[in-house]
Amino acid sequence: MKRIGVDVGGTGIQMGVVDDAGNILSKESIPTQISLPVEEQVAQIADCAVRTAAAAGLKPQEIDFIGFGIPGIAAPDGTVIKCTNMNWHYIPLAELFRKHLNVRIAIDNDANVAALAESVAGVSKGSSSSVFITIGTGIGSGIIINGRIWSGAHGIGGELGHTILSLDGDLCTCGNRGCLERYCSANALIRIAREAVAKKPDTLILSAAGGKPENINARIVIDAARENDPLAVSLYARYISYLGQAIANVVNFLDPEIIVLGGGVSKAGAFLLDALRKEYVRYILYKDQPLPPLELAVLGPDAGIIGAAMLA
Amino acid sequence: MKRIGVDVGGTGIQMGVVDDAGNILSKESIPTQISLPVEEQVAQIADCAVRTAAAAGLKPQEIDFIGFGIPGIAAPDGTVIKCTNMNWHYIPLAELFRKHLNVRIAIDNDANVAALAESVAGVSKGSSSSVFITIGTGIGSGIIINGRIWSGAHGIGGELGHTILSLDGDLCTCGNRGCLERYCSANALIRIAREAVAKKPDTLILSAAGGKPENINARIVIDAARENDPLAVSLYARYISYLGQAIANVVNFLDPEIIVLGGGVSKAGAFLLDALRKEYVRYILYKDQPLPPLELAVLGPDAGIIGAAMLA
Repeated sequence: MKRIGVDVGGTGIQMGVVDDAGNILSKESIPTQISLPVEEQVAQIADCAVRTAAAAGLKPQEIDFIGFGIPGIAAPDGTVIKCTNMNWHYIPLAELFRKHLNVRIAIDNDANVAALAESVAGVSKGSSSSVFITIGTGIGSGIIINGRIWSGAHGIGGELGHTILSLDGDLCTCGNRGCLERYCSANALIRIAREAVAKKPDTLILSAAGGKPENINARIVIDAARENDPLAVSLYARYISYLGQAIANVVNFLDPEIIVLGGGVSKAGAFLLDALRKEYVRYILYKDQPLPPLELAVLGPDAGIIGAAMLA
Repeated sequence: MKRIGVDVGGTGIQMGVVDDAGNILSKESIPTQISLPVEEQVAQIADCAVRTAAAAGLKPQEIDFIGFGIPGIAAPDGTVIKCTNMNWHYIPLAELFRKHLNVRIAIDNDANVAALAESVAGVSKGSSSSVFITIGTGIGSGIIINGRIWSGAHGIGGELGHTILSLDGDLCTCGNRGCLERYCSANALIRIAREAVAKKPDTLILSAAGGKPENINARIVIDAARENDPLAVSLYARYISYLGQAIANVVNFLDPEIIVLGGGVSKAGAFLLDALRKEYVRYILYKDQPLPPLELAVLGPDAGIIGAAMLA
């Protein structure tokens, strides 16, 4: 099957022709321009798809399928229900796109699509069930069950980041309190670090940030923990404890075959993975049983393209 | 198919011949005697199965399948891995049982089995996916996906009661802190009521309990709330808020077709259901979308027998 995967993001739209094994054969991208009318945005995406096909030696009519991964939710008929970053609300994306290229289309959430990519061509390849957790500005997740994306019976599942981890906890951007992403995202780590350096400025975290708390990012905190800065070590332990509890919630409730970690924070690599592997087990009810292994995603930013293509 | 479902509990073992539609054709029970050697317990269960078959006009050799629901976890080969109430640890239950009756056997967790019963013959009949939450002394849950029990890839899932709802929260019997069942079980409601009456003894809760805090049970608190006792109303609102957040976590993460509530607390009926239906929506990320309806279980204590028989 000749397929294109499109990864729709707030700053850019990446796409590629992907073979059945999940290899990217050609890759193109365009900047996201949310100020344009949606019909114009779709026309540009279609033009780019034609170029992407050509770069892989394919004519437009040879493309069988185009899949879209979006930072939002879509209905099975190809309507984007909500995609805040793109300002798309109830947009008939598939219908609009087919005016340019008459192909079979599917649309799904970007974290779901990344979960699918890893389970088809990445670290969870060969597994029947997995949960992919992307740890970046927020926390996203995608669930694979019986080899297929499980986005819920009403298409609103997989929102691990907005499950409640702390009753009456911190206010979240979604309007609720205590959402998991308030404790486990990169932003959460940054926030607890900024609060801490205000009280204890004698730390590598602050010097690495040029003395400016506003310059602190997750990498600075993690690197300082790696270098045994006492404050960073203690903040990192607290963050690992939160993230370990989030992972344990996934195990205690869903128990997938494997749990995959992606997103910016996962770039910390073994330093993150080793700490989390020790931590999450503490919170498992049946901790003496075989447990889902914890692994890092391997496809990186390409997961969006590969997974979208695999929606076929 | 001729099948028997066996509901193994800490005080009694109930069983019945169940037809393919989930109707119980005969029912027998024996008391649980954990002090006996396990071989003797199994022999008594087998004797009871023979009587149960006879009561439905069946000879033992006409039984095709016997399913067990246990308050614990079992391996696919019919070994009970852990069943604390029965003091069964790594007991080859299927193998032991077949020395008495050579039938096909399956064993699963009691909450999973109740979830299956409701989805085959109860309130969630006809649904493809559901989550059953049993609210009693603790919180149990069972997940149905694509019409089958999902107990996880390692058999340790469905433990909603031990997912963490409150970081650094109350100590749970499992050894962790902040487990959902510490906030959402009947015991949780009793605990917050006992704490509250100590400070504010002028309440219907205490008078209904004969002035003795140790006599307070969940029903007393709920009935007092129903009668507009101010303290009870406020405690019940807090409890509903906790339970609403627990249900929202299930929706935000898994989004099943329907959520079913069972167990002792669910006997509060519409007074519980109406309050929860309003409450859980508040914590859903995509609250303007169609959501899983919330319903009460209808099979009551028979769910254990019916669901175990349906494991075939």
